Amino acid sequence: MPFQVAVCGPRHCTPQDEQHAREVGRLLAQAGATVICGGGVGVMAAVAAGAHAEGGLVIGVRPGDTAADADPHLSAVIVTNLGEARNAVIVWSADAVIAIGGSWGTLSEIALAKRRGTIPVITLGGWTITDHHGNPLADDAIPASTPQDAVTHALNHRS
Amino acid sequence: MPFQVAVCGPRHCTPQDEQHAREVGRLLAQAGATVICGGGVGVMAAVAAGAHAEGGLVIGVRPGDTAADADPHLSAVIVTNLGEARNAVIVWSADAVIAIGGSWGTLSEIALAKRRGTIPVITLGGWTITDHHGNPLADDAIPASTPQDAVTHALNHRS
Amino acid sequence: MPFQVAVCGPRHCTPQDEQHAREVGRLLAQAGATVICGGGVGVMAAVAAGAHAEGGLVIGVRPGDTAADADPHLSAVIVTNLGEARNAVIVWSADAVIAIGGSWGTLSEIALAKRRGTIPVITLGGWTITDHHGNPLADDAIPASTPQDAVTHALNHRS
Amino acid sequence: MPFQVAVCGPRHCTPQDEQHAREVGRLLAQAGATVICGGGVGVMAAVAAGAHAEGGLVIGVRPGDTAADADPHLSAVIVTNLGEARNAVIVWSADAVIAIGGSWGTLSEIALAKRRGTIPVITLGGWTITDHHGNPLADDAIPASTPQDAVTHALNHRS
Repeated sequence: MPFQVAVCGPRHCTPQDEQHAREVGRLLAQAGATVICGGGVGVMAAVAAGAHAEGGLVIGVRPGDTAADADPHLSAVIVTNLGEARNAVIVWSADAVIAIGGSWGTLSEIALAKRRGTIPVITLGGWTITDHHGNPLADDAIPASTPQDAVTHALNHRS
Repeated sequence: MPFQVAVCGPRHCTPQDEQHAREVGRLLAQAGATVICGGGVGVMAAVAAGAHAEGGLVIGVRPGDTAADADPHLSAVIVTNLGEARNAVIVWSADAVIAIGGSWGTLSEIALAKRRGTIPVITLGGWTITDHHGNPLADDAIPASTPQDAVTHALNHRS
Repeated sequence: MPFQVAVCGPRHCTPQDEQHAREVGRLLAQAGATVICGGGVGVMAAVAAGAHAEGGLVIGVRPGDTAADADPHLSAVIVTNLGEARNAVIVWSADAVIAIGGSWGTLSEIALAKRRGTIPVITLGGWTITDHHGNPLADDAIPASTPQDAVTHALNHRS
Repeated sequence: MPFQVAVCGPRHCTPQDEQHAREVGRLLAQAGATVICGGGVGVMAAVAAGAHAEGGLVIGVRPGDTAADADPHLSAVIVTNLGEARNAVIVWSADAVIAIGGSWGTLSEIALAKRRGTIPVITLGGWTITDHHGNPLADDAIPASTPQDAVTHALNHRS
């Protein structure tokens, strides 16, 4: 089975997030990894386009009850009808998680992935979490500086 | 996006169920349809093997928290950690459902698919449901007599 | 913790189903059992009304994203936003399941409860399931003839 | 239907978190609000004990497949078997959310509640989230300074 990397990020993202997501999708596909994403717009669409451009497998996991609003670059669509509980499904399906950009939905995926605890969680941009005193968390996600850096961290865990 | 057909059936199935599932998988892959299944043993493994043998895309949707027990012929694994609530995810991801053989889990998928109501539900073997008086249901699933018949019914709904 | 009994049944039910559900709700509340139901109309509303009339605790587990459409006799509402995957939550929350009447949603709950396998599943009216040859299932749900009979079967399993 | 307040927080919490949770539970019960919580140890147990001591209704929503590990002060247990996807069920069942203390699971509940967007989300202690430049989020949760302050914010939204 190919290595599966979840790529998460906002529907409403910055141009830089979008560029990062597309590049992460390309690099993952080139490395033969399968991309799991939310299958919608913004970062989700950009990573799907990047993976698709390189002939990679990319699966969208949708929150609603229809595939009609899914991104056209997906290889397959999982229609969960679970609302945002689908974020947990994305996280459990991943051998590594890359989060690009900041939003509440993205933060929920980072948090669920860290809660799961057995896979690398990498952030590229996005929000910062500190403890009650403003200090970094001992067990924080891994910050990446570039798409290549994020993908390298994720694939390091491929056995 | 390719047409997606869920193929459901027991873990502990008869040799005939297994043969039917393998043939359904082959026929769906030959027709260019994507197979969605539970990703485990029995009917799930047989349909995955059939689709894989024809180079088709086949996605397993697992109930547990790991891909370690997933069938090796799957193209990708969705690890839901939702238990049997994952049956609803399989049903919602499908453009048509083919149920092969009888078990309580299979029956739950038939019932959830009929409850959804917007897709064809086809049975090949398996259990029989009647109303309180022993009469057939007005709105029952479509019974198929052969794997080819089941696949034809499912693909009839491809737009 | 009180014994929890899930009572399932159609939204669109017969007058007899409704009368049965109300009586089952009353009897469970009188016995100090908590009722878990789908929190909607039909059998769900009738069992809630029956339990409420006897001062019992009755919890509705809704499929949508709002409590606005929940039955007014509920003590509390669990809003799942999981669609019909919520049927699995009802089943897992139960120490026993009583199904009243026939529908695809109700059948999915019977099937999920039998698939779980560790709790008594009792039917009062509703559909009949047979094997491929029209014979009764060896492992079928327990048929009850009256509300009192159904409740007695359910509470037999109270430790 | 009574107003329902979800109270979230770590399994492994500080003594102050525990004291805060117990007091929040007491105050909510005194106000006639129903408490929804995760039903486990730490903050979950403390809020249940506080609500129970005042005769309040408190419902635990468990991630696993059994009620055996549920807190004994719960009025009822919803056994989801959904893993941490149950965090979304807690959030959707709430008319307001109070998060006490910091952990990845707690952060996922804050994030899912903010993603939902229609209910007040109040924090009492716990982690701090900032944007990429270290600035506060425009749309952050409401920070409370005491249990009474947290409960007042939550009940302000009771119609």
